[in-house]
Amino acid sequence: MEKNGNTENLQYENGNSFTSNCSTQTTQFDGLTGSQQPSHDTADAFGSLFKSAPRPGYGISSTDKDAWYYNMHHKYRGKAIIFNHENFQVRDLKSRAGTGLDCINLEVSLKNLGFDVTPYVDLTLAELDRKLDYWAKEDYTNYDCLLMAILSHGEQGIIYAKDGAYKPEDNLWGRFTGDKCVTLAGKPKLFFIQACQGDRLDGGVQLRTQVDGSSSFKIPVYADFLIAYSTIPGFYSWRNTQKGSWFMQALCDAFNKYGYQLDLLTILTFVNRQVAIDYESNVPGAVQMHQQKQIPCITSMLTRLVKFEKKN
Amino acid sequence: MEKNGNTENLQYENGNSFTSNCSTQTTQFDGLTGSQQPSHDTADAFGSLFKSAPRPGYGISSTDKDAWYYNMHHKYRGKAIIFNHENFQVRDLKSRAGTGLDCINLEVSLKNLGFDVTPYVDLTLAELDRKLDYWAKEDYTNYDCLLMAILSHGEQGIIYAKDGAYKPEDNLWGRFTGDKCVTLAGKPKLFFIQACQGDRLDGGVQLRTQVDGSSSFKIPVYADFLIAYSTIPGFYSWRNTQKGSWFMQALCDAFNKYGYQLDLLTILTFVNRQVAIDYESNVPGAVQMHQQKQIPCITSMLTRLVKFEKKN
Repeated sequence: MEKNGNTENLQYENGNSFTSNCSTQTTQFDGLTGSQQPSHDTADAFGSLFKSAPRPGYGISSTDKDAWYYNMHHKYRGKAIIFNHENFQVRDLKSRAGTGLDCINLEVSLKNLGFDVTPYVDLTLAELDRKLDYWAKEDYTNYDCLLMAILSHGEQGIIYAKDGAYKPEDNLWGRFTGDKCVTLAGKPKLFFIQACQGDRLDGGVQLRTQVDGSSSFKIPVYADFLIAYSTIPGFYSWRNTQKGSWFMQALCDAFNKYGYQLDLLTILTFVNRQVAIDYESNVPGAVQMHQQKQIPCITSMLTRLVKFEKKN
Repeated sequence: MEKNGNTENLQYENGNSFTSNCSTQTTQFDGLTGSQQPSHDTADAFGSLFKSAPRPGYGISSTDKDAWYYNMHHKYRGKAIIFNHENFQVRDLKSRAGTGLDCINLEVSLKNLGFDVTPYVDLTLAELDRKLDYWAKEDYTNYDCLLMAILSHGEQGIIYAKDGAYKPEDNLWGRFTGDKCVTLAGKPKLFFIQACQGDRLDGGVQLRTQVDGSSSFKIPVYADFLIAYSTIPGFYSWRNTQKGSWFMQALCDAFNKYGYQLDLLTILTFVNRQVAIDYESNVPGAVQMHQQKQIPCITSMLTRLVKFEKKN
């Protein structure tokens, strides 16, 4: 390994080595290899962010190599796709009252930020697949970024469409990696998921207050993703049937207040704060469900700051 | 659910409902319940960030409820614990040449940021357990935050100590939740992991450049964590045997350059950029290993910005 393309020696952990002739350096990776090496299937059993294999691609970077901020000066802000699920054909999945309000509020907030918003309601797995196929083939050359929001039921590692569950790492963000969707390579790909990730509850803890521009460069195909989940893996995600989900309420509030003022990770940190502090379930009749808390989970592979600028 | 403690109605998805007498509002959660509800064990099979059950706790918040920044004006910055693993007694795990340099560089960077740094080398599972037990019982009242770094081999969902593997959600960050470690409740708990998370490779994509403060409030016990992984789930993490791992090199560079200037999520975004763009494996003799890329993965449950201020 070497910056700027110097050659080097590379060794596998099992002792095989590959030698190039220009360097005495050696790169290793911090995992098992050889006979004890876990297969791809083993890794999948734990759930991964991305499953499909990268394929060759070539994109055009609209951002200087060393820029702190993503280029948000394309002709258009970008597409925002909302998959809103209220009614299901899956046993034991009840209607998600309040999600309509989430969807409307989010649509308004995103339009204010300059997005071209397309909401879909209650798609089946096959319909969802067709829509995602369509959006994965879109030409995003003139767009700053892509944003997708999913409002649905979920469990750990899966999200429900109308008639069944899917794994988002395959079907959702896995379709928009830099190799598959080259007009989005180097641009922010932003995913917001309002769904349970399990059935655990967080009882909370009480706090008392005391007071470049040159030639060409390569990026990982899995770079420039942001995946913001309403809750951490294993846990419930709460929704008010009249006001909408806690996470979507806080997200829309924060977009409306800070959308053009602060960078996205800062905005989402404040969403975390609002959900964590301002919301608590209140069900005195059900001890286990009463006074429960929720903390969202931001996973960022972004390589620059996202800051929305007003479009002319 | 209601802000500020108003009572409400809560319904399970399976149709049971719990009614309080002061509201017509209803809260639901976005997952399966009832007979189809997955057990905790099922959820664990997917791997979760936190596994143990919350227990009651009471902490003192050193930060105003609505503050944008964590309070970084305690008497001390805080403890930084480094678990550095170079040699292993596990079959097929080779020595991690270069990790000593990672450890020294990180120690210097963290000391510059005011941390009291304690490095451990090549601990066994039992030794690691004892040390973590010790640190979980520490009184952090006079500290701004806690920081831990692990430099080791790993696979998806596990990290290796000298003589075996452990799950970080149980043994590492799971011990420092707000309920268990009340003097850290409401303070940043920062984890940096240099380790493989699987055996997949990222071939990259080529880019051409175009040019309140009153009484009392409750927080989720899983809030205020940051877990920065050198690579995304399922993937290899690269280390240079002479210069150290790509992630630790970039992290130390960024701490040295921006540690007192920018907030932590911004710093880590720039670490992502440096790893993603400036590093690439170069092993012309091994086609599969040649010209591979890496993107780190930041998972944030932080509720405020972390910005280090100089201590007097």
